[in-house]
Amino acid sequence: MELITLVIYDIPDDDLRLRVAKYLLSKGLKRVQKSAFAGPLTSSQRSELISGLRRLVAGRRANIQVYPLTPASYAQRVSIGVELSYEEEDRLLT
Amino acid sequence: MELITLVIYDIPDDDLRLRVAKYLLSKGLKRVQKSAFAGPLTSSQRSELISGLRRLVAGRRANIQVYPLTPASYAQRVSIGVELSYEEEDRLLT
Repeated sequence: MELITLVIYDIPDDDLRLRVAKYLLSKGLKRVQKSAFAGPLTSSQRSELISGLRRLVAGRRANIQVYPLTPASYAQRVSIGVELSYEEEDRLLT
Repeated sequence: MELITLVIYDIPDDDLRLRVAKYLLSKGLKRVQKSAFAGPLTSSQRSELISGLRRLVAGRRANIQVYPLTPASYAQRVSIGVELSYEEEDRLLT
């Protein structure tokens, strides 16, 4: 079963941050905030994603958190304020 | 029932961002990343928090997302890399 998977990151290094963003886009996630991506993943896709992120980070100063959201959690999501657009930024990345 | 509530934000304005961080700390949430807070909230505490955030943001350029995490979602959370510390930053805020 696919679960919407939310990935949030805190990565001070510009180069690593870009590489992580690119990697998340390549796995089919969409940017929902400057430092947050989300998209549906099966359990095995999520495991692969987590391994890939661990390889990218490998001992560097960064923190990434991955939250598989149950349908009940995702349905209760509330978005406040404007939806900021990152399309142009992400077009340049891919 | 209390649910761990995850709040992530994207707020370009420094002053508004600080006020939102202060507000989230005052409601008992803890910083889990530079732009992410989490903590247990009842449904009515969460509604109050959302109203408070809407008042703070009120038409300004900002996006805040609130995710109530079911215990199943929260238990599957994965943290990659180092835990960055924000204690000093938050001590100055409160």
